[in-house]
Amino acid sequence: MRTLCTSLPTLAPGSPVTLEGWVHRRRELAKVTFLVVRDRSGLAQVVLPAGSVVPPEETTVRVTGTATANAQAPGGVEVTDAVVESLTEPAETPPAELWRPHLDVQLPTLLDHAPVLWRHPAQRARWELAAASLRGFRASLDAHGFTEVTTPKFVESATESGANVFAVDYFGRPAYLAQSPQFYKQQLVGVFERVYEVGPVFRAEPHDTVRHLAEYRSLDVELGFIRDHRDVLAVLREVLAGMVAGIGEHAAAAVERTGARVPEVPTEIPVIHFADALALVGAPADEPDLAPEHERALGAWALEEHGSDFLAVEGYPMAKRPFYTHPQPDDPRWSNSFDLLFRGLELVTGGQRLHRPGDYDAAIRARGEDPADYAAYLQAFRHGMPPHGGFAIGLERWVARLVEATNVREVTLFPRDLHRLTP
Amino acid sequence: MRTLCTSLPTLAPGSPVTLEGWVHRRRELAKVTFLVVRDRSGLAQVVLPAGSVVPPEETTVRVTGTATANAQAPGGVEVTDAVVESLTEPAETPPAELWRPHLDVQLPTLLDHAPVLWRHPAQRARWELAAASLRGFRASLDAHGFTEVTTPKFVESATESGANVFAVDYFGRPAYLAQSPQFYKQQLVGVFERVYEVGPVFRAEPHDTVRHLAEYRSLDVELGFIRDHRDVLAVLREVLAGMVAGIGEHAAAAVERTGARVPEVPTEIPVIHFADALALVGAPADEPDLAPEHERALGAWALEEHGSDFLAVEGYPMAKRPFYTHPQPDDPRWSNSFDLLFRGLELVTGGQRLHRPGDYDAAIRARGEDPADYAAYLQAFRHGMPPHGGFAIGLERWVARLVEATNVREVTLFPRDLHRLTP
Repeated sequence: MRTLCTSLPTLAPGSPVTLEGWVHRRRELAKVTFLVVRDRSGLAQVVLPAGSVVPPEETTVRVTGTATANAQAPGGVEVTDAVVESLTEPAETPPAELWRPHLDVQLPTLLDHAPVLWRHPAQRARWELAAASLRGFRASLDAHGFTEVTTPKFVESATESGANVFAVDYFGRPAYLAQSPQFYKQQLVGVFERVYEVGPVFRAEPHDTVRHLAEYRSLDVELGFIRDHRDVLAVLREVLAGMVAGIGEHAAAAVERTGARVPEVPTEIPVIHFADALALVGAPADEPDLAPEHERALGAWALEEHGSDFLAVEGYPMAKRPFYTHPQPDDPRWSNSFDLLFRGLELVTGGQRLHRPGDYDAAIRARGEDPADYAAYLQAFRHGMPPHGGFAIGLERWVARLVEATNVREVTLFPRDLHRLTP
Repeated sequence: MRTLCTSLPTLAPGSPVTLEGWVHRRRELAKVTFLVVRDRSGLAQVVLPAGSVVPPEETTVRVTGTATANAQAPGGVEVTDAVVESLTEPAETPPAELWRPHLDVQLPTLLDHAPVLWRHPAQRARWELAAASLRGFRASLDAHGFTEVTTPKFVESATESGANVFAVDYFGRPAYLAQSPQFYKQQLVGVFERVYEVGPVFRAEPHDTVRHLAEYRSLDVELGFIRDHRDVLAVLREVLAGMVAGIGEHAAAAVERTGARVPEVPTEIPVIHFADALALVGAPADEPDLAPEHERALGAWALEEHGSDFLAVEGYPMAKRPFYTHPQPDDPRWSNSFDLLFRGLELVTGGQRLHRPGDYDAAIRARGEDPADYAAYLQAFRHGMPPHGGFAIGLERWVARLVEATNVREVTLFPRDLHRLTP
């Protein structure tokens, strides 16, 4: 019967114990040899006679011995009278010393050796924040009557996906990889009212930036029978609170290990209109978008004015939003959509969508396109759709902000970009 | 404040009420007009004066009125003194009458009109079984120390994915869509010990069968520090029990609506060796695989002999398993792998994998390939991997068996196959 490393202190001194894990560190002193074993729970110390032959770091081992109290050992208990059995060949020397408190490598090294370097406890903890966030995301939506759905990643037309789309040879004809589940999650509001999906989205992003990947995880939500985008924002607030709660519940140790700054989600996320946001940052009133420095300034303002790490900017100009965006009823230059800034960086885009088939026909014609090319999508609308809206959160961006990683690749298990397809 | 249809009976008679949903059915009688409203929770009856103009079926509406007891109404309460407001244009007539108890359409109609026909309560309930299964899947793994991971869908080489792989134009060079997260989930065992992923997998399946899709959802699990594949099977048993529990907890109504036959998962899943299975069904001892009629016979045998809907067939010939399969230690003709039959149909493939780098080198060379071509994958093994194994469950096949759908497309929200890319 295996004991996890962090459960060692729960054993009565003198108990027989079997650990299984990786050789985290060997320390050969004059009078004694220490072996630190790492498993999914953490670390444990094994004491061996001086001069013992122990396998090199990262070799997987089974250690049998006796649980013995020692105030100096992690958790106050170590393993003595130990027999160490290797479970595989001696491991090759890792590209960095994983037992050091900090993983001190350059980004290309981290990415080239991802399968090994993600083992570093502080690096692994970054993903534990992601996994805990996913649990919180789903728990909050499950509790509010949402249904998890899956939508196809193969789509028929590039129109459906817009620019920067990947083409696939689909049984001899062209198909494309979905850039978002947008069209499908809307159609499924017609079925389930409230849906979410966690899945990969694909962007043939030709730019080499610290924020973009060719493939990332989108946390998509869509819901029907809303009044306007403020109802969507209220759900987003619940979801973010759920993600933060998930981290608190399932990844407290990872927070400590990464030094993550986990935000408080205010009861109500402060909202500013796009026009007011431009004025606030001193930008010309006819700017169609917020520049990164504007977003940073707004983030600082939200913190100072509202004590909030989050700020929703609503009313983005219709001209800059996708055709399915619902206009602001009292002034159709603006939209019922929003971006959510988290510490001055865009984290979420969302809003209300059109729901009347006539509005879709008009919006598509206004782009110089033919509604017939959108027949499959528009089917749902012709057969009755409620007022609805939703949002999408980029998982990697969320985690990057939590741990203040400058590059989203640092928190992605196996990133894919313009240059990288492996490992 | 909106009331869900199925919450109507909880209101005190005489309470004001607002329903929002779809016109499920209109019934115009001589003395009264009935409107049945459908929302995500179910149905409610609205009573209007005879001759009232009501919007056609599937139009979304808001109904305000008074909750009134009526033993004949669903749940014993209906809405009277009602005002019906349409939320969109009158809906076009659906391709089938969604208010009938059974959705009586041919498969092509179902698929062509998926966005509308999935609204039928019995059809929607099929997906509710899938969603509840996913919740149960994750809950059982979360409770056992597994970490959810995401793995890249773009992979560098077709070797990695095997036959029937989709090619992508990846920034001007070729890439491929992952046929499974196999290589990555193994590498991540090196990081987290126990991992799972729910994600799309892509198979350029050139055959038109009732069981294959070009894109489906794979529920992937992998875990380290096992003794052999029997430890993997024990986790699979927990996971299946979790999925069944998830259905019981979150989709009891869907079970009723679909008539799903939800299995009991035995405390221990019966196991038969491949060689014994051949003998049992009277097949020649040198058959390399089980034919569908063999699987059916074995399923019947498991039910009769063990009272079990599940049967694990272990020891499949090495010659028919992928190169990373661990051989049976006492007889390397056979493997430490298994297929799980559910009611006589393959539902899960799993087993123990190789974990020593030397074994990988030998296995790859035995295929006439060069281990250097697998360098990224083998990195994890050269740096220490534990004995490990795992399995993959096809979500659509699972649901198809529950509801006894003859074609997996009937339970897939938007199936993709040789011929179909839309809707």
